[in-house]
Amino acid sequence: MRPLAERLGHGPDARLLIINCDDLGSSHAANVGVYQALREGVGTSASLMVPCPWARDAAARYRGEDIGVHLTLNAEHDLYRWGPITHGPSLLDGDGGFPRTREDLWEHADVDEVRRECRAQIERAILWGFDVSHLDSHLGSMELRPEFFDVYLELAVDFRLPLRLGSASTERLVGFPFRRLAEEEGVVSPDHFVAVRTAGRRRAIERAIEELQPGVTEVHLSPALDSGELRAMSPDWPARVDDHDLVTSADSTLAALAARSGAVLVGYRDLRQLQRS
Amino acid sequence: MRPLAERLGHGPDARLLIINCDDLGSSHAANVGVYQALREGVGTSASLMVPCPWARDAAARYRGEDIGVHLTLNAEHDLYRWGPITHGPSLLDGDGGFPRTREDLWEHADVDEVRRECRAQIERAILWGFDVSHLDSHLGSMELRPEFFDVYLELAVDFRLPLRLGSASTERLVGFPFRRLAEEEGVVSPDHFVAVRTAGRRRAIERAIEELQPGVTEVHLSPALDSGELRAMSPDWPARVDDHDLVTSADSTLAALAARSGAVLVGYRDLRQLQRS
Repeated sequence: MRPLAERLGHGPDARLLIINCDDLGSSHAANVGVYQALREGVGTSASLMVPCPWARDAAARYRGEDIGVHLTLNAEHDLYRWGPITHGPSLLDGDGGFPRTREDLWEHADVDEVRRECRAQIERAILWGFDVSHLDSHLGSMELRPEFFDVYLELAVDFRLPLRLGSASTERLVGFPFRRLAEEEGVVSPDHFVAVRTAGRRRAIERAIEELQPGVTEVHLSPALDSGELRAMSPDWPARVDDHDLVTSADSTLAALAARSGAVLVGYRDLRQLQRS
Repeated sequence: MRPLAERLGHGPDARLLIINCDDLGSSHAANVGVYQALREGVGTSASLMVPCPWARDAAARYRGEDIGVHLTLNAEHDLYRWGPITHGPSLLDGDGGFPRTREDLWEHADVDEVRRECRAQIERAILWGFDVSHLDSHLGSMELRPEFFDVYLELAVDFRLPLRLGSASTERLVGFPFRRLAEEEGVVSPDHFVAVRTAGRRRAIERAIEELQPGVTEVHLSPALDSGELRAMSPDWPARVDDHDLVTSADSTLAALAARSGAVLVGYRDLRQLQRS
């Protein structure tokens, strides 16, 4: 198959960049931060966490931006909690909310309940008025285990949506050919995914953009407003505030870097249009 | 039976005042506001909403204050949501959370699921380390309908806890003798309850304290920090911020008023001690 960049109408050496903002709906701070990143910053798409307390607020603020569903089966914070909208017993930890870790989820979740919950999340987003642009998953829970990936791919096929997938290097690590499986079903995905951890996040993102490869690269950030709510939620709040600075500030390093490496900013809608054509 | 004030060791004309802070756990703003009211202000007890997103955070901040369980079967905000910890289907609205209104709850909830959810909320608070001082209910959902009141009273008996009850005037309105029923079971309650609506809240509270009757009066407030989170939650945010000022500020009108009407500040623990003696 022809390279994705070419199928999107660009030259063979073109460097396309999706700057995705995760965790929309997770908190008030994220809702304000993500929409600012899309409207005033260089964010090109975002991902909504439907089961979270602030998801309805995110829907009320929606004005047609490029937003997909961040399929959510974990609630990772110790002191701030949410749970499944379908109430599947195998999706709960002892607390009445989602489990905190992917490992706990992978060990206990029933695949039928996972399928029902994820489908409900997508349908709920559509019901709320979102023109859903793609699917990805919170903490990568759907992407890295074969039985969860099967559901993830099935939903992408059913709703005709592009998927976030790990890079080829991740594929070799997890031991099943998720990129080939998606391609066989005609599901479109960015060529490269820059997964960065909290520590050294800004530097890692900057380096990834400096060294941008030909093709479509997705970088993800979790921008959020600095607030008491955010600071109480999670010890990783400084990284979220830094992401917000990085993607929104007027003298955005990210925008300058992207321009310097000749990157063309695209959203997931471009990929969805290709997949549906 | 001897009047409550006397049974608490005061004279027959004594005016005792409980200043209760509701909605602990409902938001970050409420958690900060309620603990400030108890620690720096004149709040004498508070009520925890166990199923809310910020309840675990409220538990982490707990240092032995006089806190009861605010039994919660509604999520009244349009854009900020929570749901039951026992996931009883009859306790959900179409959204996957609690219904927004008491009327919706009263129409659809199965009493066995109500009992299971309320019991789980109390047990969860105990598990989290709260020395639960009393029971009351969010929006008065448990107090004003006979079949819900039966559960409310049963839990007060089982856990040997005092109850918030409406005043005698409310009893006449709702048409069943909840005060007599509680008394017959040996459950202790304040003599008077000052229920005030948002509009004119401060003035109504001030008047109630100026005209304080002999016996034990409970006034309830919903103090919360002024923040973006609070403002986005609900159009009633100014009343919550005003409650916070009223109960916490150094020149607290409430403290001055209480002193002027000769009120003795007490908590629900005083009532619990009496009930258990």
